Formats: sequence, C-alpha cells, structure tokens
Amino acid sequence: MIYLEVIHLKHVLGLRCIFCGQELAAKPGLYTCPACGRKDGILDVVYDYSVINRLISREQLAHNKDNSIFRYLPLLPIKPDTPRPHLRVGWSPLYRPSGLGRLMGMDKLYVKDDGQNPTASLKDRASIIAVIKAKEENATTIACSSTGNAASSLAGSAAAMGMQTFIFVPSRAPQGKVAQLLIFGANVISVQGSYEDAFALSAEAIDKWGWYNRNAAINPYLVEGKKTVALEIAEQLDWQVPDWVVVSVGDGCTIAGVWKGFQDLYRLGWIDRVPKIAGVQSTGCSPLVDAWRENRPWQPAAENTIADSIAVGVPRNPEKALMAVRDSHGTMLAVSDEAILAAMRELGASSGIFGEPAGVTGLAGLKLLIEQGVISQNETVVAIVTGNGLKDVKNAIEAVGEPLKVVPSMAELITKLQAGNLV
Amino acid sequence: MIYLEVIHLKHVLGLRCIFCGQELAAKPGLYTCPACGRKDGILDVVYDYSVINRLISREQLAHNKDNSIFRYLPLLPIKPDTPRPHLRVGWSPLYRPSGLGRLMGMDKLYVKDDGQNPTASLKDRASIIAVIKAKEENATTIACSSTGNAASSLAGSAAAMGMQTFIFVPSRAPQGKVAQLLIFGANVISVQGSYEDAFALSAEAIDKWGWYNRNAAINPYLVEGKKTVALEIAEQLDWQVPDWVVVSVGDGCTIAGVWKGFQDLYRLGWIDRVPKIAGVQSTGCSPLVDAWRENRPWQPAAENTIADSIAVGVPRNPEKALMAVRDSHGTMLAVSDEAILAAMRELGASSGIFGEPAGVTGLAGLKLLIEQGVISQNETVVAIVTGNGLKDVKNAIEAVGEPLKVVPSMAELITKLQAGNLV
Repeated sequence: MIYLEVIHLKHVLGLRCIFCGQELAAKPGLYTCPACGRKDGILDVVYDYSVINRLISREQLAHNKDNSIFRYLPLLPIKPDTPRPHLRVGWSPLYRPSGLGRLMGMDKLYVKDDGQNPTASLKDRASIIAVIKAKEENATTIACSSTGNAASSLAGSAAAMGMQTFIFVPSRAPQGKVAQLLIFGANVISVQGSYEDAFALSAEAIDKWGWYNRNAAINPYLVEGKKTVALEIAEQLDWQVPDWVVVSVGDGCTIAGVWKGFQDLYRLGWIDRVPKIAGVQSTGCSPLVDAWRENRPWQPAAENTIADSIAVGVPRNPEKALMAVRDSHGTMLAVSDEAILAAMRELGASSGIFGEPAGVTGLAGLKLLIEQGVISQNETVVAIVTGNGLKDVKNAIEAVGEPLKVVPSMAELITKLQAGNLV
Repeated sequence: MIYLEVIHLKHVLGLRCIFCGQELAAKPGLYTCPACGRKDGILDVVYDYSVINRLISREQLAHNKDNSIFRYLPLLPIKPDTPRPHLRVGWSPLYRPSGLGRLMGMDKLYVKDDGQNPTASLKDRASIIAVIKAKEENATTIACSSTGNAASSLAGSAAAMGMQTFIFVPSRAPQGKVAQLLIFGANVISVQGSYEDAFALSAEAIDKWGWYNRNAAINPYLVEGKKTVALEIAEQLDWQVPDWVVVSVGDGCTIAGVWKGFQDLYRLGWIDRVPKIAGVQSTGCSPLVDAWRENRPWQPAAENTIADSIAVGVPRNPEKALMAVRDSHGTMLAVSDEAILAAMRELGASSGIFGEPAGVTGLAGLKLLIEQGVISQNETVVAIVTGNGLKDVKNAIEAVGEPLKVVPSMAELITKLQAGNLV
C-alpha cells in the first residue's frame, strides 16, 4: 500500500482562512476562522505538495484503473483506510461532441457530463467526501440543506455507508430529487419557504442535535471533493489545460472546487498554466454576477429561475467563487431562462446529453460569451454539465413540448407526419 | 491497429436461425429466416472464436483503459472503423453492497448498476450498436417502438451520431422517458394504445418508409450489444463466474443478451462454466414465466404492472429468452408489484442505488428465490439493475410516500421529528 504514509494525513498541513490568512490545525467541526470570525465558507485545505508528489504522479495515474475520484486519493483530505461508500463517483466522461461543436462553430469544445454520477449530479463528488469525513469523526448522522442535488447525493452516499441523514429542502425542490431522497431512506424535511429558510433551519437543527454538517459552503472538505472534476478534465485532456472552463454558479462551491483543482495541479507542477473560469448564473437569480459586474459586495437576490440548483439568492460560498473568477482572469455573466431551455434542447439534439437546467447553464453562457467575443471559437473550452435532466422532467417538457399523439392507424400516422413535413 | 484484420468482419461467420439451424450470410436487413419463415427474433450472430482469440485476450483487457463496451470490440458485430457515437456506454459499476447483502443474508451479492449508462438504462448497449449498424448500412433514419428505455437510448445514440429517429411509444410511457426522447430531438409518436399497438404501427411505418429497424427482438445485432453486460460482469469478477445472474424479462432480449455473452466467453475458453440465469417478470404481465412454468407455448397476456419497461404482453423475443433459462439450467418466476416497490425501497435505502420498477424486478425475484430455497444465501449472485429510477418518478413516489412538511420554525420541526420518533 503506497498510501500508508498518509494515514495521519501527512499530506494535509491544515486549514487556511482565505480572508485573514490565519493557518489552523484541521480539527473536526472547525468550519469558521477564530481569528477573523468570518463564517461564509472561508477555510481552505492546505496541502504539502512535496508529500503528494512522492505518493502520486501523472505516470502512475496513466496506469491506474480506478475509474472514480479515488484515483486521486493522495490529493484528497481523507485517510486512505477510512471505509468508503461503494458508489462509483467521478471519472465522468469528457466528450468532444462534434455535432454541438459544429452548432457552436467550435472545433475544440468539450463537455464534461457530470450527470453520469451515481445520483446524477456533480454533487456526488462532495457528498462522498462528507460521508467519509463524518465516518472519520465518528458521526452516525449527517444533515444538510440543499436545493436538491446536494441532498440526494448525500442521501445516496450515506445510504451506501449505512448512515442516517436529515435533509432540508425548499418546497420548490423538483419531484425527481425528492423521490431520490426518499428512496435513499433519508429523513426529508420539506421546508415551506425559500432555500435560505431551509438553510437557516438546518443550521439550527444541526446545532441542536449535533449532526455532522454537510452544508457545502461551510464544510471546508467538500470543495476538495468537487475539485476532482478539474483533476479529471486535466487528465482526460492528457494534461493539456483548456483555455476556458465554463460552469454554472449557485452557492459558489462548484466553481470554487474547479479552481482549487487546477491550482493543486499547478502547484504540483503537473500543468504549466491554469484555465480561465467563466461562472454563469440565471438572470432570474444572479447575486454573484451582479457583484462581479459592478465590482461591489454581493447582495441577496430573488430566486426566480427554472434552474433550481442555482436558484440561490443568498450564496453561501461567495468569496471563493469570486476569487476563482478573479484569480483565473475569467469572467461572469447571466443568461435568461429561455437561453437555458434552448441550451437543453441544443445539447440534447446535437449530442445525446440530457442536462438539467442548471446543468446546461454554463453552456448557455458559453454561447453568449462567443457572441460577445469574450471567448473565441478557436479556443479550447470545457463546459461542465453538472446534473442530469431526468432530475427535473417538468422543465424538460417545458423546453421541448409534447409528442405527436396518434391512434394506432397508418392512415392517421401518414396524415400527421405529412402535416409536420416529417416524411 | 490490432483490429485491421476484422475490417471485413472476418470474426463474424454469419447468422444462424435458432429454430431450423439454417446458416445465412449476414446481409443488411436480413432479420427473418428464409428457410423456416419464423420472424420472432430468431437469428443469432455466429462468430469465429479462433479469430477473436487472436485479436483479444483476458490479459490484454486487463490493460485496456477503454471503459465502455468498445473494450470488447472484437466481440461485437461491427466494423472497427465505423464512426461511433461519443457516448460512454457500458462498463457500468458492479457493486458488492454490504448493506443490501446483510439485508438479504448474503455475502456474495453483487449489483450491476446499468442505470449508470448515458441515457440511464441497459438499452444503451443495444442502441449504440443499432446506430453503428445503421451507419454501416448507410441509413440516415432509424425507427423503433419501445416501452420507453429502448426509445430514449436510441434517440440519445442517434443524436450523438447526427441521425434522425422516429420513435413509437405506448401512451403509458413514463414522462421522464418521453422527455428524454424529445430533448434528444427524436420525432416521437405517442401511440394511443398498448405496446403491441405501438410495435405493430412502427413495423408498418418502417416497411413503408424504409427506415433502419432498431426493434430489438427483430434486429439480430442488438442482443450482441446487450451481451456486453455479461462480458463486463465476468471481467469485473476477475473471470470468476457467478452461480446466478438474475434479471427482469420483458421482450426477452436482455436475458438473451446475458446468456449470449456468457456463451461467447465459454466458447472462447475464457470461463470454465456458465451461470444459471433467473428471469423475473411481474405477476401483472408474465407470459414467459407462465409458459416456462407450465411448459407450454407462450400466450399473449395483459399488461398490468407498474414496471413499464417489462409490461410486454406480446414478447418479441420469447424463444431466445426461454432458451437462456433452459440452457443455463436457470429458472423463471413472477413477483408482485408490491414486491417490486419494496425492492426499490430496500435497494435505495441500503445501497444508495435508485432503480426503476423494472430495474429492480430481478432483485425482487432474487428475494423470493431465496425464500423458496431455489438460490442459497451462500451462492454468488449478480442482480442486474437495468434502469435508473429517475426515469419514473411517479412510481418511486408511490414506493416511498411524501416528505415531512414543516414551516421554517424550530418549534414545529422539534414537534414533528419527536412525533415521528426521529430524534
């Protein structure tokens, strides 16, 4: 076992506050900075990259047949011998869909389909780490609030591990995501209010009953799970870093994870530059885009978008998100719900990939960035599809309408197909 | 390129009628046996195993990083240089879920989660082959009838390949599956009638307009795609063949594919025995189980089950299905819809795997076979989960009920959790 050396997490130096720079020992339950008192997702895991470089290399990875995030075990803040859920999380396909490329006028367009994770969203990358960290801290019950995907992924990983969960979802969570939760045996609390209400109630409940806290923006380890999407993109592109990575933004944890992954690789010396990161929100809920564009602190926003996974009026990880865009020399923008529905149709019909609304928001943003000349059609771009459209069939139907209905008769079929110029 | 040798399909000797044994050259559009005139899915692809054994070995596979069905290219009836859709089909995870094992009193219980395919069902294995064969035959339009999964998988693979599709679904097809079809840009014809009606209308339309026929039971190449699930099970178990493989049965093509895969491996000399195959239907629609139990020809049955993917009253591949059970010394049985819903709950809560009703029907059957003493708890068993529960959220909700609803108030939360003995 080459990993024995890191049983005591020798590769993790500790946590660092992204505001005041204070370095802290990584202790269970330490989620806020005692030095500056900030609470909004501000601790970062600090690694000893020289230790990691002794444990893993690009060459070793080339022969690693573990097609999950655990191929990057020495880059994760977990003990190598902690029991892990059996679910195959990560190593999602990176496609180069030629049909979509033609549609966008791009030759080097890639789509990372994270809807192919066990519970059908990128959030599985964070949740499996949450469950493992909870196990390391001897917790038996985990809780979180979520617009849906974080919840269903936590419930899935916890079920696979035999742990109990309490999940707080806003009343608008799509049926598919709620069904997943219940099937995974979670205690599901549908909070009759906004995501903000669900988040606040979960925080109080976690305090009261001492459950393990999987709220992604608070728990510093979850970004570490999410960063694996960037590690995979780099490896799947044979360590040729793309010019841009575009991704949707809600709380801000996913974009922060993408950035952390590329930073890790750069510091390890495995890549020689980092990509620019484009963060995309819906115009119906764009507190971070507004803050970015107007170069001011973010302010709470309404949650008026079909893209439920990123309908986050009070983002919980704003600073790391804005840092990812700023430090990568990237950009942010908002797209309309109509553009999101159009992206669902275009991605599906040109590539056979079914993304949920928030899942294709990055792609909708890419289209606009190309129109605006911010991204050139010659550049290498990876659009991350963060979740599967099966989670939100209602909005998919909205995007595409209804099928052609016929009685079982050739005469009627011929008439209707001819009327639609289909034959 | 080690595959150049088979460009002219030197590894395929031809087709053989499973009834009369007639051997036929594999020609485009040849789906029926001219010798005996039978039409119901009776042609089998015949390989030259000595050629295949020169092209691929267990040892080569151990170093093959292609995590899709195309790792078995020399075992597939396609030209190696035919363009292929980019979708990552196959190499789905084979889990050994300890929680489910404990629940079933089994130590060597494996679950093959084929809901992890691109369009979330095992059918992707067949559809991607259909699209490739259509390309080889210079077809530009493909058609099929389906209870849902074959349709959405065909639409996905065809979209990825830039081909047009006409899809006939019965009116009862779940919304999730129809949404997938429309997103993938298929021309969807919702036939207001049974699966049998949809099948008959599609057959007439295919005849009239000359579309490529993906109807699985007719097209002899599709079972060849489905067989890859067996190849993967064997490889993932390090070529230790399980005692049993349990799988749900509708048309009969999937169970036929499972059997064909193990037969191929046995004939290649890669495994030294074959597993017993257990085929499971719902008591609400069990024409093949009834035929098997009463040792008589099958008769059309009603389609009264929530397991829509196997609600097939007139099975289209009955003979290959019954042969799989008979020749493997396996068994068949039917389970109630209640048992299917229970299996959904148990699999989800113990393992974090969300199967659709037909997807978990094999597992429900396994439970009964253990109760009946047909399968022993000590045996090694693989249950194939054929599709993801997100495709049919309505029935999932039926299985699990509704979440706990609370207003955003700790007082109400405490009261309700205490009332449920949850804290």
